[in-house]
Amino acid sequence: MPTTTWNRHHVLSLADFTTAEYDTVLQTAASFQEVLSRRTKKVPTLQGQVVANLFFESSTRTRSSFEIAAKRLSADTLNFAAATSSMTKGETILDTAKTYLAMGTDIMVIRHREAGVPNAIAAEMDRLGVRVSVLNAGDGQHEHPSQALLDLFTICTLIDPANPRLELLKGKKIAIVGDILHSRVARSNIWSLIASGAQVHLAAPPTLLPKLFAEYFSEEPRARSQELLAISPSSPPAPPASPAPSSSSSPTPQLFLHWQLEPALQDADFVMTLRLQKERMTAHLLPSLREYHQLFGITRTKLQLCKPNVKVLHPGPVNRGVEISSDLMDDPEFSLIQSQVTSGVAVRMALLYLLGSGKA
Amino acid sequence: MPTTTWNRHHVLSLADFTTAEYDTVLQTAASFQEVLSRRTKKVPTLQGQVVANLFFESSTRTRSSFEIAAKRLSADTLNFAAATSSMTKGETILDTAKTYLAMGTDIMVIRHREAGVPNAIAAEMDRLGVRVSVLNAGDGQHEHPSQALLDLFTICTLIDPANPRLELLKGKKIAIVGDILHSRVARSNIWSLIASGAQVHLAAPPTLLPKLFAEYFSEEPRARSQELLAISPSSPPAPPASPAPSSSSSPTPQLFLHWQLEPALQDADFVMTLRLQKERMTAHLLPSLREYHQLFGITRTKLQLCKPNVKVLHPGPVNRGVEISSDLMDDPEFSLIQSQVTSGVAVRMALLYLLGSGKA
Amino acid sequence: MPTTTWNRHHVLSLADFTTAEYDTVLQTAASFQEVLSRRTKKVPTLQGQVVANLFFESSTRTRSSFEIAAKRLSADTLNFAAATSSMTKGETILDTAKTYLAMGTDIMVIRHREAGVPNAIAAEMDRLGVRVSVLNAGDGQHEHPSQALLDLFTICTLIDPANPRLELLKGKKIAIVGDILHSRVARSNIWSLIASGAQVHLAAPPTLLPKLFAEYFSEEPRARSQELLAISPSSPPAPPASPAPSSSSSPTPQLFLHWQLEPALQDADFVMTLRLQKERMTAHLLPSLREYHQLFGITRTKLQLCKPNVKVLHPGPVNRGVEISSDLMDDPEFSLIQSQVTSGVAVRMALLYLLGSGKA
Repeated sequence: MPTTTWNRHHVLSLADFTTAEYDTVLQTAASFQEVLSRRTKKVPTLQGQVVANLFFESSTRTRSSFEIAAKRLSADTLNFAAATSSMTKGETILDTAKTYLAMGTDIMVIRHREAGVPNAIAAEMDRLGVRVSVLNAGDGQHEHPSQALLDLFTICTLIDPANPRLELLKGKKIAIVGDILHSRVARSNIWSLIASGAQVHLAAPPTLLPKLFAEYFSEEPRARSQELLAISPSSPPAPPASPAPSSSSSPTPQLFLHWQLEPALQDADFVMTLRLQKERMTAHLLPSLREYHQLFGITRTKLQLCKPNVKVLHPGPVNRGVEISSDLMDDPEFSLIQSQVTSGVAVRMALLYLLGSGKA
Repeated sequence: MPTTTWNRHHVLSLADFTTAEYDTVLQTAASFQEVLSRRTKKVPTLQGQVVANLFFESSTRTRSSFEIAAKRLSADTLNFAAATSSMTKGETILDTAKTYLAMGTDIMVIRHREAGVPNAIAAEMDRLGVRVSVLNAGDGQHEHPSQALLDLFTICTLIDPANPRLELLKGKKIAIVGDILHSRVARSNIWSLIASGAQVHLAAPPTLLPKLFAEYFSEEPRARSQELLAISPSSPPAPPASPAPSSSSSPTPQLFLHWQLEPALQDADFVMTLRLQKERMTAHLLPSLREYHQLFGITRTKLQLCKPNVKVLHPGPVNRGVEISSDLMDDPEFSLIQSQVTSGVAVRMALLYLLGSGKA
Repeated sequence: MPTTTWNRHHVLSLADFTTAEYDTVLQTAASFQEVLSRRTKKVPTLQGQVVANLFFESSTRTRSSFEIAAKRLSADTLNFAAATSSMTKGETILDTAKTYLAMGTDIMVIRHREAGVPNAIAAEMDRLGVRVSVLNAGDGQHEHPSQALLDLFTICTLIDPANPRLELLKGKKIAIVGDILHSRVARSNIWSLIASGAQVHLAAPPTLLPKLFAEYFSEEPRARSQELLAISPSSPPAPPASPAPSSSSSPTPQLFLHWQLEPALQDADFVMTLRLQKERMTAHLLPSLREYHQLFGITRTKLQLCKPNVKVLHPGPVNRGVEISSDLMDDPEFSLIQSQVTSGVAVRMALLYLLGSGKA
């Protein structure tokens, strides 16, 4: 493992992640990726530690990824699925978490449909002065940091497999397309991509990308100035603002909003698509999946606007023929989707390792 | 591990537990508590053995506690949850148990909503002459021995951490408050507390504590004489009968029934509260949770009747503000609730160890 | 482990199994049966490998058997139960399988209510050129090879515990009784029994055993000639055709169809009963369970038609008093049911070992 300074007890959000922290995760994940290519894919690092997957909102995919990561580190795992659980009857979520704490859990991986639950549990653990780590596995429409970190790892290892690091994305144009308003994946990705110096172009129908959305990222901890943000007029489509030369007094805009797909795709290096919840239609935020696909679905034709080597990401599961055309999804020349899943195990091993190895 | 004589193949009830058996469990749990404080919390004791958690009635909390205990002993675990199972279609519960037997299960941890199921399975295993152990993890309104043993361990280690043993409770006054009639936890606790020589004061509304309740404990195996029992008149509240000097010809009363809370709390050393099932209200056994809390809920004010160092227990999950006031539950000066959960893992390790280590 | 040549990447069907392959499974299972009789029942063979139980159709019994087999080989296991899963929302089953592939799964154990799903997944894995193995744990009304192999192992070890092999069944008369039309267990068993040279007598009501059924086995890969098949007239019951001397030009009939129970039982060495799905009645394929039991249920009296040492098998769970009378099911003189469950773990260890040990 790379020697690093890692002082974080919890991974709840990427809003305050430092470049050093991103690089530590990327490099640690790279060494685990190497472990995963060996015949024996298991290391004894977390032997005797207990990783509890507390999934108040069910997600087989993410839970399996964390479970396999924990097992490859030789940790013992406990699975809690709210759907089939008799817990939480009358007690609060903090009570449930404290029960798992008292049983000797070392790391809690938490998913909840309400934003802020992992933060609240982490705050309570800190208040109690215990060494338990909390890892946010997706909370409401807030964040999903391990997903954004695996996206980052997937892209960076594509660019430089031997030495993935944040600065590799500097100046890259990355489009994020889809239901941005409701997406915790988008929020976490925006933090990491802005931190990397990439140009982040958001594209969605206005109902899924309100103009005010961007303010969230200027009001947050780092107090970014509004100049980070540029908004593309909806019609006619404009090319993205060409970045002004960087200077300390006037930062380059990094976050661009588009209500049409084309300006976001124009010359893009990477296209991140987001899962569309079908519930959005019943809420009248979308006319139809068919129309959505016509306007914002990624197809081979639309990709011709991008850089020649453009790659497409999706956090999965994909609604085939909605966010991405079915043939494109299966085309390894363009799709990084399988690679993201594989990266997920390495990145989650890295996070569990970084959180768990300090528990001596 | 302490050297002990332990000849029990199953743990089904505490009704016939001997003092030596209680002490063996307490001392074995104490040594596992020590293991749990080490950096590597795992021992290879049950490597290769299979512990099947057969939870015909779901309970995430108890199942997780047994699962973590089994994993810390290096056993392999199988989880069976009736809710999501396709088994038991057409076959009997004994057939299901025999299937797990035939697969090579060494210890079956069984929860069922009907009293007597673990006993029936254990009897069948004995009839077949196999070395499988059955551990009752709660059967109907009958018993929940591992819960009572962890309560006992929690109290005894508080009194003497280095040497927890049954006699530490001799003469202590312990109140059990709540839905005693329907509680398997209360029944198991009454057996262990009477065996310890403690004074056990039950307090509940008459609908949840019929006068006949106490007869159960005089008719059971040890054939206790009726003199063990004293009944406090409902109104006006009377102080608990002061124990007469112990003599071999006339045993001191040990079990006291109260239909008001105050006489049970008066000078109590420990207060065990029980979970109130909200179904009791729909069955008209209770007027309202609010009134229940007013009359039988434990609050800071009511605790002033007890000994100054009184501690409160609850098997969890707590209905906050019903059985216990919310602030009291979180006050480490009074609440042993977290400590009970931690004790649970050590005590269940002890039970699995004692049952499993004879399987050579 | 016996030294063998095993070149199969997947176990999907027994239709094309060779005698050498059957014998390899039987001998490997026999060595694991020996491991299971040791004090430490675990071997490190598959350490670091991941076995994913992808049960799109739930089956606690079969899943537990595979899980315990995998754990005894020291593999890590992942359980996926469609019923409680949020996966497969919008994605195809192949997408789900590819996700588990990308996470690093080595062996996928798949059950699905549709015939052909494991084959489709295996074909996709082969197309991708990956070394993942697929094991069919029951697909629709197609096949359930591990069940038929454990039935075979149970019978062969009964005849020659030290050296179970396919040829032991040559010339034996084996009756398969029950809902043959809808049974994947029957189909897999028919392949292995025909391969062994046994005489296979099917008995069921005409609604559960159409005359055309047998054609399936003549049209399949080995292109058996119609002469393999003999059909017994429904009334009056005829004795089974006595096998003609074997010759290369005219093979002995091996598959016999009966619409009454008696000719199938006459002089049978083994009776395989099948689980009756109660849904068959609502589909008017059966008049009543009572009548079914009267006509096709196996009882002590009816067994008198068989060879004196006849044994009865059932894949479980049994509908007591329907397929088999309750007392017969529990009589170890006749019933092999418990033995089948135990064999199941050894046979599944053998299959996982044979598939997994080539993954160096």
